[in-house]
Amino acid sequence: MKQFAVIGLGRFGSSVARTLSRMGYDVLAVDTNEERVNAITEEVTYAVQVDAMDEQALQSLGIRNFDVVIVAIGQEVQSSILVTVMLKEMGVPRVVAKAVSDLHGKVLQKVGADMVVFPERDMGVRVAHALVSKNIVDQINLSPEYSIVELVAPAEFVGKTLQESAARREYGVTVLAIRRGGDVIISPGAKQVVHDGDILVVVGRNEKLKTLGG
Amino acid sequence: MKQFAVIGLGRFGSSVARTLSRMGYDVLAVDTNEERVNAITEEVTYAVQVDAMDEQALQSLGIRNFDVVIVAIGQEVQSSILVTVMLKEMGVPRVVAKAVSDLHGKVLQKVGADMVVFPERDMGVRVAHALVSKNIVDQINLSPEYSIVELVAPAEFVGKTLQESAARREYGVTVLAIRRGGDVIISPGAKQVVHDGDILVVVGRNEKLKTLGG
Ligand SMILES: Nc1ncnc2c1ncn2[C@@H]1O[C@H](COP(=O)(O)OP(=O)(O)OP(=O)(O)O)[C@@H](O)[C@H]1O
Ligand SMILES: Nc1ncnc2c1ncn2[C@@H]1O[C@H](COP(=O)(O)OP(=O)(O)OP(=O)(O)O)[C@@H](O)[C@H]1O
Ligand SMILES: [Ca+2]
Ligand SMILES: [Ca+2]
Ligand SMILES: [Ca+2]
Ligand SMILES: [Ca+2]
Repeated sequence: MKQFAVIGLGRFGSSVARTLSRMGYDVLAVDTNEERVNAITEEVTYAVQVDAMDEQALQSLGIRNFDVVIVAIGQEVQSSILVTVMLKEMGVPRVVAKAVSDLHGKVLQKVGADMVVFPERDMGVRVAHALVSKNIVDQINLSPEYSIVELVAPAEFVGKTLQESAARREYGVTVLAIRRGGDVIISPGAKQVVHDGDILVVVGRNEKLKTLGG
Repeated sequence: MKQFAVIGLGRFGSSVARTLSRMGYDVLAVDTNEERVNAITEEVTYAVQVDAMDEQALQSLGIRNFDVVIVAIGQEVQSSILVTVMLKEMGVPRVVAKAVSDLHGKVLQKVGADMVVFPERDMGVRVAHALVSKNIVDQINLSPEYSIVELVAPAEFVGKTLQESAARREYGVTVLAIRRGGDVIISPGAKQVVHDGDILVVVGRNEKLKTLGG
């Protein structure tokens, strides 16, 4: 079983630590801030108040033995970079680092971070997309042209079979699944009737999906 | 065309503002901090240095005429709540507010926010899931039992047709699409050969997908 360490217990870091811990993984949580350490101590395997800039202290935590270390230090850009360098030099196989700007992200990559994440930026993009297409619930971008989206069944489809609906004919999209209450109908047939409140999972061209998603 | 205003130009707020603006929408960007206003001014319709706690100032911006206002004030929890209350009282149809904790989120909802978002928490959950299933790129949860996931084609599938692969037989999953370089093959046939580096979009039971995703 993989072992994880999270350095920096802000909103992002503590969410990563809690989620991994809930999934049953061993998690070491580290922060200089005593309150933040105390707040998470019951929810992770081990929480400790340590300055990650202190190489000696990191060594004594046996940090080199963790499979993945997440550096979730935000504001202190310098620290985030130096800690990433140290972790890679100590031989940590996978270091994931949070960046606060594009430049910060580039530097983290240059100094050896195996994965760089931009939580606020990426969630900003997601929320913006959700706001403009009122019926779209979630989506996977397959390419610049195609996506899979989950959308509230358009009123014009309700009460019709998939065949009768304009889905394929007018929009050229394929319905991959229908979510109805707690149930899921996978690869629904042409005779399947769309109900009010159904969530359709469809694949198609982005511009068609945009029209369909309102 | 919908008009948007974003109050608070931290990493999240500025990402929402930029994304909406790139999609062609009118965006008013507001912050008390002059540098943050200057940094975004070229990328939005209008950027202005205003304290959103100042009701008079908000009025003169005509904020009531915006369709959606995003309150992306983070640390200053009190301000975020008061600004949300004011916006709803002024008659803004849709107020989306960023929360920094569960409690903050509950209060925002109580005072009338139409949508509450937790960017760092939600991205923490996403990153944690991505870290434990090394091959899974993105996913849509259809129900507690079923998901659609995008995953790097497992080595055991490479060089085989979908029919020959264990996808349906052993894992009971259906391949909905294949991403290959910039191309997308939608509803691939049984004779389609899986290449090294292909990204498969598959639907199936969560426990099977987990095994498949490594
Ligand atoms: N050298 C360090 N060693 C350990 N922890 C550190 C170090 N430097 C900063 N931290 C901790 O990292 C955490 C996250 O930092 P900060 O709050 O600046 O980031 P943030 O990007 O605003 O976080 P978020 O938006 O996720 O809440 C803080 O709790 C801080 O105490
Ligand atoms: N009353 C206000 N009126 C306008 N802007 C405000 C007000 N209060 C705070 N802001 C601005 O909101 C922005 C976001 O606040 P802050 O940086 O505290 O949030 P954050 O959650 O850490 O942001 P992020 O993690 O997205 O970078 C800041 O640029 C701040 O100047
Ligand atoms: Ca503990
Ligand atoms: Ca933040
Ligand atoms: Ca401008
Ligand atoms: Ca912050």
